[in-house]
Amino acid sequence: MAVTLGLDFGTNSVRALLVDCRDGSELGTCVVPYPSGDQGVLLDPRDPHLARQHPGDYLKTLKQSMAGALAAARKARPDFDPASVIGIGVDTTGSSPIPVDRQNRPLALSDRFRETLAAQCWLWKDHTSHEEAARITALARKHRPHYTARCGDTYSSEWFWSKIWHCLNTAPEVFDAAASWVEFADWIPSVLAGVTDPAQVVRGVCAAGHKAMYAKDWGGLPDEEFLALLDPKLAALRPRLYQEAHDASTPAGSLCPEWADRLGLPAGIPIAIGEFDVHYGAIGSGVEEGVLVKVIGTSTCDCAVVSADKKIGDIPGICGIVEGAILPGFYGIEAGQSAVGDIFKWWVEGVCRGDASLHEALTAEAAALRPGQSGLLALDWNNGNRTILVDQRLTGLLLGQTLHTSRAEIYRALIEATAFGARIILERIEDYGVPVRQIVCAGGIAEKNPLLMQIYADITGREMRIARSSQACALGAAVAASVLAGSAAGGHDSFPAAQQAMTGLKEIVYRPDPAASRTYERLHQLYQQVHDAFGGVATVDLGRIMKELLAIKEEASR
Amino acid sequence: MAVTLGLDFGTNSVRALLVDCRDGSELGTCVVPYPSGDQGVLLDPRDPHLARQHPGDYLKTLKQSMAGALAAARKARPDFDPASVIGIGVDTTGSSPIPVDRQNRPLALSDRFRETLAAQCWLWKDHTSHEEAARITALARKHRPHYTARCGDTYSSEWFWSKIWHCLNTAPEVFDAAASWVEFADWIPSVLAGVTDPAQVVRGVCAAGHKAMYAKDWGGLPDEEFLALLDPKLAALRPRLYQEAHDASTPAGSLCPEWADRLGLPAGIPIAIGEFDVHYGAIGSGVEEGVLVKVIGTSTCDCAVVSADKKIGDIPGICGIVEGAILPGFYGIEAGQSAVGDIFKWWVEGVCRGDASLHEALTAEAAALRPGQSGLLALDWNNGNRTILVDQRLTGLLLGQTLHTSRAEIYRALIEATAFGARIILERIEDYGVPVRQIVCAGGIAEKNPLLMQIYADITGREMRIARSSQACALGAAVAASVLAGSAAGGHDSFPAAQQAMTGLKEIVYRPDPAASRTYERLHQLYQQVHDAFGGVATVDLGRIMKELLAIKEEASR
Repeated sequence: MAVTLGLDFGTNSVRALLVDCRDGSELGTCVVPYPSGDQGVLLDPRDPHLARQHPGDYLKTLKQSMAGALAAARKARPDFDPASVIGIGVDTTGSSPIPVDRQNRPLALSDRFRETLAAQCWLWKDHTSHEEAARITALARKHRPHYTARCGDTYSSEWFWSKIWHCLNTAPEVFDAAASWVEFADWIPSVLAGVTDPAQVVRGVCAAGHKAMYAKDWGGLPDEEFLALLDPKLAALRPRLYQEAHDASTPAGSLCPEWADRLGLPAGIPIAIGEFDVHYGAIGSGVEEGVLVKVIGTSTCDCAVVSADKKIGDIPGICGIVEGAILPGFYGIEAGQSAVGDIFKWWVEGVCRGDASLHEALTAEAAALRPGQSGLLALDWNNGNRTILVDQRLTGLLLGQTLHTSRAEIYRALIEATAFGARIILERIEDYGVPVRQIVCAGGIAEKNPLLMQIYADITGREMRIARSSQACALGAAVAASVLAGSAAGGHDSFPAAQQAMTGLKEIVYRPDPAASRTYERLHQLYQQVHDAFGGVATVDLGRIMKELLAIKEEASR
Repeated sequence: MAVTLGLDFGTNSVRALLVDCRDGSELGTCVVPYPSGDQGVLLDPRDPHLARQHPGDYLKTLKQSMAGALAAARKARPDFDPASVIGIGVDTTGSSPIPVDRQNRPLALSDRFRETLAAQCWLWKDHTSHEEAARITALARKHRPHYTARCGDTYSSEWFWSKIWHCLNTAPEVFDAAASWVEFADWIPSVLAGVTDPAQVVRGVCAAGHKAMYAKDWGGLPDEEFLALLDPKLAALRPRLYQEAHDASTPAGSLCPEWADRLGLPAGIPIAIGEFDVHYGAIGSGVEEGVLVKVIGTSTCDCAVVSADKKIGDIPGICGIVEGAILPGFYGIEAGQSAVGDIFKWWVEGVCRGDASLHEALTAEAAALRPGQSGLLALDWNNGNRTILVDQRLTGLLLGQTLHTSRAEIYRALIEATAFGARIILERIEDYGVPVRQIVCAGGIAEKNPLLMQIYADITGREMRIARSSQACALGAAVAASVLAGSAAGGHDSFPAAQQAMTGLKEIVYRPDPAASRTYERLHQLYQQVHDAFGGVATVDLGRIMKELLAIKEEASR
């Protein structure tokens, strides 16, 4: 038996997952929440945009989750031997950069900066640097339009350079003390590999290409002349970051004796390059050319791959197209919706003040409605629009309400809104040459909400499938580890072979209902009009839209 | 002491009010709910548009409420003598036509039609005849554009001809049995006056002019040629309706001995012409040229008057401009919002599932917000738009919501939406030459919700006053009765004199706050854009609106 380990560092906890390389069966898993702050997140009561994490939490919980997973595996299979673990894969949130010293130690682990928020890991959802992001966007559009073209024309406050620049602007002592900055996804593998010099950290192209404007064709990171337009100190930092970033065919290193001892695993086993959670999640869900993976949770991330032999250009409004970001030899294409589950949670818990049982009751009530029957149309922009408008400064919209509109009708309209948003993304990538033969969903909402899945099928007109594993991210990391270990060690020699063996789909298939799809086709036209009008895409005549919704409602109510 | 009686027939109950003619003090009052149906309204489970009332309810409750008011007056003033009652005024809902036989008896009181819904009073909010209304609008626009020009360019399903035609189309046996149709507001005075022939019923110009396309300048009701385009049977009905309609200077008759006996009042006292509740409500609130009266309840009705000597033309989108409809010698101008209190009720009770205590809690929370702080903007069209768009087929809209938007923020946004709608009406009538020097509000919401009143002041930039009497409608009817009785009998010789003596304002004044008004000025511009875009008035570029709301929100939150 050959086993690989997937480590999935999420927003609130870390998961360790031991996977049998032969068939992807999960031998043992364990989740440990980060101990610090609010559910692992360090907050600042004076600034709602701030979200940081203490890097020490990662190391402590990594050890605990590993021990838990090993114990679970031993319990499930008494013959399990930790010596059969042949490789490690790591995924994390991102962009979550960490300032480190010359020994690759996070500044936050030093006495000087232990309590300093700017010295912690800058969690992906930290938005303190929105002004820097706007400035970078403006400067890049003017001086280096190709930089932003590849990230949807807008550089985000969630990303690498915005955060580092904000640190320079607001906590210069931290900036000055940092020898380098390392993405969370790169830092964990480097720790396991015993790397004690940030220059030696193997950087993944996933984080570099999607979040740091890295591209081989323009020579790596943004050039110093451009960075000097931001701040000369950023230009001076560039050589201390990295010159090259790698895809998952390059190992991040091999397990150092110290961490092998700590984790109870064999020293020297290969460690795969770190990728973001959804990217390895796409691999764990079976992504390949023609398969779109949608990870549906609080927000949604869409991943697809296209062979690097094909020349696909920039796709307007798509946040990132990065060669090797998901699978080696393929462009990785990432899109997403800024809020999905979060919108339902807002409605049910925030507005209706209910709990899980109200989620269930409203779902049941909403499921009894026919498409179009509510007369409502909503925009899914309560947290802005990531794809295809790439605009944080958009908000929600609901229209069509009467004096009889119920909370369940609004609940359903919000689900439908996220489905219309999903269709817009799907159509955009297909229009620009990304084939989508099959859609595979992953994430808690996909598994738990059949109503949503059916509405997605009806609105997109596509079958919806669900990834077999509920731990697709950790599984994808384990897949990457198995490829790195190779068939000689009991792993696999290619991603397709590893995915074929280790990943799969659940049996359930959500098929579009033709009658529902016809009604939703009409509603989608209206959604598109409102989307374009409020998204600033076009000036649209909206004078008939309420009447058309009423007409659809009346037909649906007959 | 001279006393007049105001009888106010509302949607769910009747109120009798005894008023001292010297100073308007209220001697005694009593409200009795109608016994039939759902809170007095006969419904059809198969048709949500249907709303009828049993005319027998009116007579039964009239007697009860009169007895109650007399008892209350005797209790309050032991020296009170019913013989001091010198006149009666009546207001009712409308357009609420009643089919009657040759004896002016409602068909619904006959054995044959007692259970027949089409033979009952067709309550104002009955919308079963929307198809007939659309057909009348289309035919009038084509053949008699001046007919609809005076009622906002659209003939409503709530009005006289739509309802009668719908009766003809769906219950021809009732139509054929009807000798005539009498408005509720005309029928009650005719009963009190002992009129036993529908041709002898004195018709008020208020109902005739606002709801039946009656105008002196084109010879009364719509001509037979036009009615024949609808249906020849309607043309044949015309001579059995009425040739002339009157303002409040003409009496509807005098109290017949039979009803004098039933009510315990002196026989022979004059009965004023019937008007709609809000019209007499305007009089009871002190309407005169320059004063706009807003009756704010489940919906809002705005009333103003302009001297008939002035030539004011049609005002686009204003439902009705009828000479003598409110005060003799003045054009009565009526506008309104289809839902105001109903929208708050929908939100608090329908969506948030709360009761009166939640209304209070949300009001307190909403009052703590600064203008613009919610980032929200709503349209007040959950029940369509009466003025100035005159379009039932419009619906609600809410925009600007984030993942943190609270139910109290939405509650406040809905209040603001109704205030923006009120401002649109105010600006429209002023633009067309109706002077507004003072705004006087009446109705439960005006009295009970200081937050709403302050928002109305801030958004309109005008002082808001409140009518002194909480029974402005019944008081206005009593004022009309006092004028009819005249000073010789202890009443008054003119409406200004009677209003001067009998009506007044509460002390409280809601004054616009300059800072709030500045913020609301910006929000009103955005409201206007969304109003025009979804109202079909104009094609508007809405691409910046969410960003502008966010900018206002951020400024307001500082």
